[in-house]
Amino acid sequence: MGNYMTTAETAAWLKSRDNFLIITHRRPDGDTVGCAGALAQGLREVGKTVHVLFNPEITPRYARFVEEYWTPEGFTQEHTITVDIASYDLFPKNGNAFVGNISLCIDHHPSNTLFAELTCLDGTAASCGEVVYDILLELSGSVSPKSAECLYAAVSTDTGCFAFANTTANTLRVASLLVEAGASNRKLNRILFRTKTRSRIKIEGMINSNLEFFFGGEVAIATITREMMESAKADEDDVDDIASMPGTVKGVSAGITIRELTSPHDCKVSVRTSPQVDANAISARFGGGGHKMASGFVLEKSVQEVKEALLEALEDFFPVQV
Amino acid sequence: MGNYMTTAETAAWLKSRDNFLIITHRRPDGDTVGCAGALAQGLREVGKTVHVLFNPEITPRYARFVEEYWTPEGFTQEHTITVDIASYDLFPKNGNAFVGNISLCIDHHPSNTLFAELTCLDGTAASCGEVVYDILLELSGSVSPKSAECLYAAVSTDTGCFAFANTTANTLRVASLLVEAGASNRKLNRILFRTKTRSRIKIEGMINSNLEFFFGGEVAIATITREMMESAKADEDDVDDIASMPGTVKGVSAGITIRELTSPHDCKVSVRTSPQVDANAISARFGGGGHKMASGFVLEKSVQEVKEALLEALEDFFPVQV
Repeated sequence: MGNYMTTAETAAWLKSRDNFLIITHRRPDGDTVGCAGALAQGLREVGKTVHVLFNPEITPRYARFVEEYWTPEGFTQEHTITVDIASYDLFPKNGNAFVGNISLCIDHHPSNTLFAELTCLDGTAASCGEVVYDILLELSGSVSPKSAECLYAAVSTDTGCFAFANTTANTLRVASLLVEAGASNRKLNRILFRTKTRSRIKIEGMINSNLEFFFGGEVAIATITREMMESAKADEDDVDDIASMPGTVKGVSAGITIRELTSPHDCKVSVRTSPQVDANAISARFGGGGHKMASGFVLEKSVQEVKEALLEALEDFFPVQV
Repeated sequence: MGNYMTTAETAAWLKSRDNFLIITHRRPDGDTVGCAGALAQGLREVGKTVHVLFNPEITPRYARFVEEYWTPEGFTQEHTITVDIASYDLFPKNGNAFVGNISLCIDHHPSNTLFAELTCLDGTAASCGEVVYDILLELSGSVSPKSAECLYAAVSTDTGCFAFANTTANTLRVASLLVEAGASNRKLNRILFRTKTRSRIKIEGMINSNLEFFFGGEVAIATITREMMESAKADEDDVDDIASMPGTVKGVSAGITIRELTSPHDCKVSVRTSPQVDANAISARFGGGGHKMASGFVLEKSVQEVKEALLEALEDFFPVQV
């Protein structure tokens, strides 16, 4: 297990085989779905039979990139491939039948557990889409407009339309080549980044109007109650990535979101920080954890109680200046 | 007047001359300021004397890219250059002394009036930064990290961090090469796109909470009153580009912003539309105008009166479906 292959070796491996099944990860995002669509399309263009395993959690936002490749009844694959999946934990429910039997894993997570027989991994890539782009180029010398469309969705969504800190020179280079290959960045940007649901707008409005600032403006706390969610008719899709909002305010080095969950007195807290504040250490105080700049925890307390406990703990991180 | 030069000819022209003054446009944005900083820096690196005319409207956001090049007292230029300026109307107040005496105009606006002796224009470029990038490459074969930083600001701000419809494959290609040349896209994206003032957050919150929808959700109207501006302690910088907000709501094909101006009963209206709705025709009804997808007008009426007049006029654009 865990043998590495370059993108050229991966292309050669694909060329000499046939009948592939591609698996995307649970809570599918633009990267996993875009990679699956692009790889399926690219392989079909060189005459292969290939399908994508239906993902039961697919959302309308991303279905357009992959739905035409869903596995029909009666298809039996010879080789199973995963895209943008770091470990078995991230398999969709209906993918568990394939555990222990993955031929090829294409990924960009440095934390990849090397669960597949063969692994094509670039831990420096901002998106798995950049890896698949190289494979498709090796496979046929070019990327078709249809594959380019899927890969643009992959690369752009994983980098917040090239604004996130993970964006590299290579991300922008690949995006440029994808637009040249026929991806309509104009249309895709509108669909993926410049369109918000009314519920999203409402919930953002509520959060922005009620943001609270502490410690001289260094800490911003946003609260999302169940009442707010109901009044905005918001679902999970509408609060996607919302934890990044309080941290975008000028002068804030710790942006915290308290989300009231369904059971009473149960709150999920997300902590996002600038490099000088250790988000992991803040959440560790409450039995949670994560990364240096992004962490979280769950507390069985009311919103008000959570806020008070947090502010007390934060005194150690933001000492009062005398 | 109006003789065109390629970027190579422009570089050769610059190489054989010295003592330059660069002018940026009024209400300076990232493109004009980034181009001025990059061009000044690049010319200094090849041994030239060059300064940028102080822009009295410069904001703290963009000053960092250009302030070290402001003209010192006693400097007399031999050649005056404009960057990102389409016509004399866009000269800053203190630039009017140079009207009729511009040696070189570097620009990307197809509407350029060819006011300079020589013009280096690429009307297909999303930003003037892309044109200046080519000139600097021709000038010295490479772009220094300092120039790259300025040009990244130019290219990224003019395209909304590569999300606006004007972004091309070349925009992304140049951005990639700038990051490779040493521009810290991570730091710059944070400063330019991922940081909002508290007042901006507040005013966005108010707008989002009070958005009104009409014609089955096809029309969204946002209102910004003077009271809202005061309560959010917002200035002009804080409402920059805010007219694009109502148009981002899903299903909306005409996003309208009514802004109450300082004099009583005086409103500025901005109209942003999808391609199928003619923004220019809507504003023309009220004596205004603009482009197909972005237009505006001013009415001497109260917010409520403006809204009523608008809704009546919009019945012709959004006929009731029976």
